[in-house]
Amino acid sequence: MYISEHKIRVRYAETDKMGYVYYGNYAAYFEVGRVEALRALGLSYRLMEEQGVMLPVLSYSIKYFKPAFFDDVLTIRTTVNEIPSGTRIYFHYETLNEQNICLNKAETTHVFVKTSNGRPCPVPDNVIEVISPFFQK
Amino acid sequence: MYISEHKIRVRYAETDKMGYVYYGNYAAYFEVGRVEALRALGLSYRLMEEQGVMLPVLSYSIKYFKPAFFDDVLTIRTTVNEIPSGTRIYFHYETLNEQNICLNKAETTHVFVKTSNGRPCPVPDNVIEVISPFFQK
Amino acid sequence: MYISEHKIRVRYAETDKMGYVYYGNYAAYFEVGRVEALRALGLSYRLMEEQGVMLPVLSYSIKYFKPAFFDDVLTIRTTVNEIPSGTRIYFHYETLNEQNICLNKAETTHVFVKTSNGRPCPVPDNVIEVISPFFQK
Amino acid sequence: MYISEHKIRVRYAETDKMGYVYYGNYAAYFEVGRVEALRALGLSYRLMEEQGVMLPVLSYSIKYFKPAFFDDVLTIRTTVNEIPSGTRIYFHYETLNEQNICLNKAETTHVFVKTSNGRPCPVPDNVIEVISPFFQK
Repeated sequence: MYISEHKIRVRYAETDKMGYVYYGNYAAYFEVGRVEALRALGLSYRLMEEQGVMLPVLSYSIKYFKPAFFDDVLTIRTTVNEIPSGTRIYFHYETLNEQNICLNKAETTHVFVKTSNGRPCPVPDNVIEVISPFFQK
Repeated sequence: MYISEHKIRVRYAETDKMGYVYYGNYAAYFEVGRVEALRALGLSYRLMEEQGVMLPVLSYSIKYFKPAFFDDVLTIRTTVNEIPSGTRIYFHYETLNEQNICLNKAETTHVFVKTSNGRPCPVPDNVIEVISPFFQK
Repeated sequence: MYISEHKIRVRYAETDKMGYVYYGNYAAYFEVGRVEALRALGLSYRLMEEQGVMLPVLSYSIKYFKPAFFDDVLTIRTTVNEIPSGTRIYFHYETLNEQNICLNKAETTHVFVKTSNGRPCPVPDNVIEVISPFFQK
Repeated sequence: MYISEHKIRVRYAETDKMGYVYYGNYAAYFEVGRVEALRALGLSYRLMEEQGVMLPVLSYSIKYFKPAFFDDVLTIRTTVNEIPSGTRIYFHYETLNEQNICLNKAETTHVFVKTSNGRPCPVPDNVIEVISPFFQK
């Protein structure tokens, strides 16, 4: 299991008239979570795209338990539970507030796609290489 | 079953560097879908909040099939499959492009909450009243 | 003088914890205003980009007089005050609420740029052609 | 003169189909810049609002020189050029990329407002107190 944590401070722009972080804005937080999870493995998502592989989202789901507020420092905990294989990768997320309370849980499924033809492609070798050590006994 | 359709034209602001509508932006489209679905029933969500009842999201999930692009006119089809009861309401969504191709399917679960104390409350009578006729044989 | 009006209903996503439309969100409204102003002239900005000319923003300024609120139907009034010449075009904007009160005034300056090399290029002939009639005595 | 710098990494969500940071998204970056500028002075904007004073934007202007891209680490340099007096405060901003190139320059004008009645109020004493030392000879 590979776990990565990244902190994000809530912007005023991200709140809504309820005073909460708008329910749609967590998707961007999780994007940051997975980009940083990859970076912590030595992988640059920007570079991956420049080299011709992108990682669009196939599905996204989230369960909300508690709201987040302006200026809160949230911890996005991003987890990869299994070594990606085939053409897909699965990310799981938890958002924790400063009291370490879990505000929501989410997951996304992605497919590796060749930018040149838009077709699914195998998980790049360098992704498997850096993530595999986290799944050895 | 109650079905409501509303058209939204994709803004440049909503695209990302892939040239697609960013995966996180559909949540706002579905918010528009359900607000307009309520309006088509004669219900104003703004008024509902002013009268002390709000409708935060408990869960949201979406499956993406095809991307949407800048300037596309999307149809957000919002469906209520069952008469809301207890304290909850469920919305289902489909996003269709101009060729009537389904780009994604989604659903949200909401809880009616009293603004004054933040506690769940029964589905307001006027909501049940206007939606019930769609579920009679 | 060429004037175009387009209506936009404020989304919940666009409000902030003050209960107002977030000050940064008007830029997207004005983008819609100018895309629709061009469309009303028979010009598709999407097509213009596909044909190799884009219109990035050089400057943007806005003065805020009054806030807008969730569910308000705003009128974005987009004005072109002079026939574009050289490589630039200037848009002026006013946001009006349902009581026809002016909420803010703004302007943007854009440069026509060739997508192929990123360099400024003359205002396309078809733009001048469709806008000129509005400036004849 | 008071200068504060804060780093922001560009999110995928913030790019548009040109591949640039969408022109409207800098407003949120500058919001972060000024909130962090206040925090570096020992002032919490969240606390200020909770204590009944808010700081809406009266005007905003920006000149764009160069674009920013996904994953860029931008430095938002926020400057206060004069001790706020009356009911207003002025912020100036520069966005610098990792090569220290200035991508844009902006400014905002704000008014201190009492949340209770929505009326302008004098600059709070604690704001003047912490910022004055930066303007002494």
